[in-house]
Amino acid sequence: MGESKKQVGVLGLGRMGTALAGALLGAGHDVVVWNRSPLKAGPLLDRGARLAATPAELASADFVVSCLSTYDSQRPVLAACAPKVLVNLTSGTPAQARETAAWASSAGVEYVDGVIMAVPQGIGTAQARILYGGSSSAFDAWRDVLAVLGEPVFLGEDTGLPALYDLALLGIMWSTMAGYLHALALVGTEGVTPETFTPMALAWLSSVGGFLSGIGAQVASGDYRTDVSALDINAAGLALLEETSREQGIGFSVPAAVRELFDGAVAKGHGSHAIASVIEEIR
Amino acid sequence: MGESKKQVGVLGLGRMGTALAGALLGAGHDVVVWNRSPLKAGPLLDRGARLAATPAELASADFVVSCLSTYDSQRPVLAACAPKVLVNLTSGTPAQARETAAWASSAGVEYVDGVIMAVPQGIGTAQARILYGGSSSAFDAWRDVLAVLGEPVFLGEDTGLPALYDLALLGIMWSTMAGYLHALALVGTEGVTPETFTPMALAWLSSVGGFLSGIGAQVASGDYRTDVSALDINAAGLALLEETSREQGIGFSVPAAVRELFDGAVAKGHGSHAIASVIEEIR
Ligand SMILES: NC(=O)c1ccc[n+]([C@@H]2O[C@H](COP(=O)([O-])OP(=O)(O)OC[C@H]3O[C@@H](n4cnc5c(N)ncnc54)[C@H](OP(=O)(O)O)[C@@H]3O)[C@@H](O)[C@H]2O)c1
Ligand SMILES: NC(=O)c1ccc[n+]([C@@H]2O[C@H](COP(=O)([O-])OP(=O)(O)OC[C@H]3O[C@@H](n4cnc5c(N)ncnc54)[C@H](OP(=O)(O)O)[C@@H]3O)[C@@H](O)[C@H]2O)c1
Repeated sequence: MGESKKQVGVLGLGRMGTALAGALLGAGHDVVVWNRSPLKAGPLLDRGARLAATPAELASADFVVSCLSTYDSQRPVLAACAPKVLVNLTSGTPAQARETAAWASSAGVEYVDGVIMAVPQGIGTAQARILYGGSSSAFDAWRDVLAVLGEPVFLGEDTGLPALYDLALLGIMWSTMAGYLHALALVGTEGVTPETFTPMALAWLSSVGGFLSGIGAQVASGDYRTDVSALDINAAGLALLEETSREQGIGFSVPAAVRELFDGAVAKGHGSHAIASVIEEIR
Repeated sequence: MGESKKQVGVLGLGRMGTALAGALLGAGHDVVVWNRSPLKAGPLLDRGARLAATPAELASADFVVSCLSTYDSQRPVLAACAPKVLVNLTSGTPAQARETAAWASSAGVEYVDGVIMAVPQGIGTAQARILYGGSSSAFDAWRDVLAVLGEPVFLGEDTGLPALYDLALLGIMWSTMAGYLHALALVGTEGVTPETFTPMALAWLSSVGGFLSGIGAQVASGDYRTDVSALDINAAGLALLEETSREQGIGFSVPAAVRELFDGAVAKGHGSHAIASVIEEIR
């Protein structure tokens, strides 16, 4: 790289920031890091990173990635370090992302917002996908460096869109995990172990993935007629899940919330329609 | 087949019963069907099925499959038709299955309970899996015929276990679908279509499937330490999802229930633990 060698800064060395800095180091970049608790930088320093004493020291880097726990914790850090180009990977809301973009604009910072659809252990692997929005010139200029972290997907110039996608996708994850943990608790009442149940759950989840495309198409068309499965039989099934959870002595607050949602759609006349019609109850 | 040709009965010709009878006919079996509304049998009769006027006419069949909407609707039908071997594919609770098994035992009926992990369109394809429990001699004798409907998985002699698995697995499906519909509603507020969003959701759901094995292992061990993602950061994320849903003007009852569940676990000291620790709040 010689004289054209670029310096990449990383603000935040939590689980995710450490993984990001590690992947950048692994790709041979010149990495300078800052973290509130500097001791966490140890392993990265051993691998060749340099430690900055203050966020301000990263302002001269060609490109800075930030990944702190929240926007609230990030705000003063960014105020102390207005870099040339900022790729903000801290999770938040679309409004927080747009507000940060407005600050960046006023501070002369080229801004790209990003959301990481991966766990730290997935960073740098084919499983990781990172969604970006904001300055397309900055994204294009840094796309190859960003590709080291995970597959980059550019959603457009709107800096709020990545956070919207992020929350939507995480919502699917949290719902699915809550469903899975409930399932483990339920079969566990009869001595079925996670080891026995999980392969069955994963095969089923892949079938469920197959159902989602059909649901999406029905939402798009607004045609909720079905020859697959009617909402009322599913609402009745949710009531059985609740009854069985009660009989087996476990909590059922999440299935109950799903049942109330489905029941609401049934009450509005969607009983013989497809499950897709439940979106009318959410909108 | 000649003299050894077996007669298979099907009680119930809803969406699912019709698919079951169709798959049996497709495999060349001699199929006799009964449905409360006999007109629904039309297409099956064209394909060679015979229509019984009463459930009692199926009592002489070698083997009967029942698939009605609920156990309540099924009880009088079974009382009118005590076959030699009954495979009950109506969905219900473990208690309802065990109660039906007790009736079968008193009526001299060999009983197998089963649950269908597929939609009607999946019957007879590699996507369909049917979980069975009950008489292993009856299951062994009829396994090859049952394999025509979907991959048969025998869970053991306990007739309540298939329904327990069914509700647990369906609970995952309902949660995941609720999460997906919420996601569609959320991104829809900014004009993102199901067509654009769904491929992203499916790729992500497959990553989420990958996370579940790790969660299952932590539940099995009871060791909730994590270097992946702490519960508190996920609970904070759920609060952001709720806030954003409110800002975008859509409902959020299911994410709110998941957040309350996660918050409950955080309040019990699991904030720095893995998401798996939430099971302590369900149990
Ligand atoms: N972990 C995942 O699976 C995952 C996946 C996708 C996205 N994310 C997102 O990535 C971001 C970081 O997550 P993480 O898992 O790395 O969290 P983490 O391990 O808890 O690390 C949090 C980071 O934020 C810093 N921080 C917190 N409060 C601060 C403050 N007031 N001032 C300065 N620094 C502060 C911490 O510094 P100290 O070290 O000094 O405490 C640490 O660097 C979050 O927005 C998260 O939603 C995480
Ligand atoms: N559809 C799916 O995706 C799916 C997937 C897995 C499991 N299942 C389970 O399969 C079973 C049937 O579901 P389905 O989708 O086929 O439902 P469906 O299309 O609504 O059919 C219901 C069936 O039950 C009969 N029935 C209802 N009440 C009755 C009564 N009081 N007396 C006699 N018969 C009565 C109906 O007869 P009529 O035709 O006379 O109304 C019809 O044959 C349910 O337990 C369901 O949970 C369905």
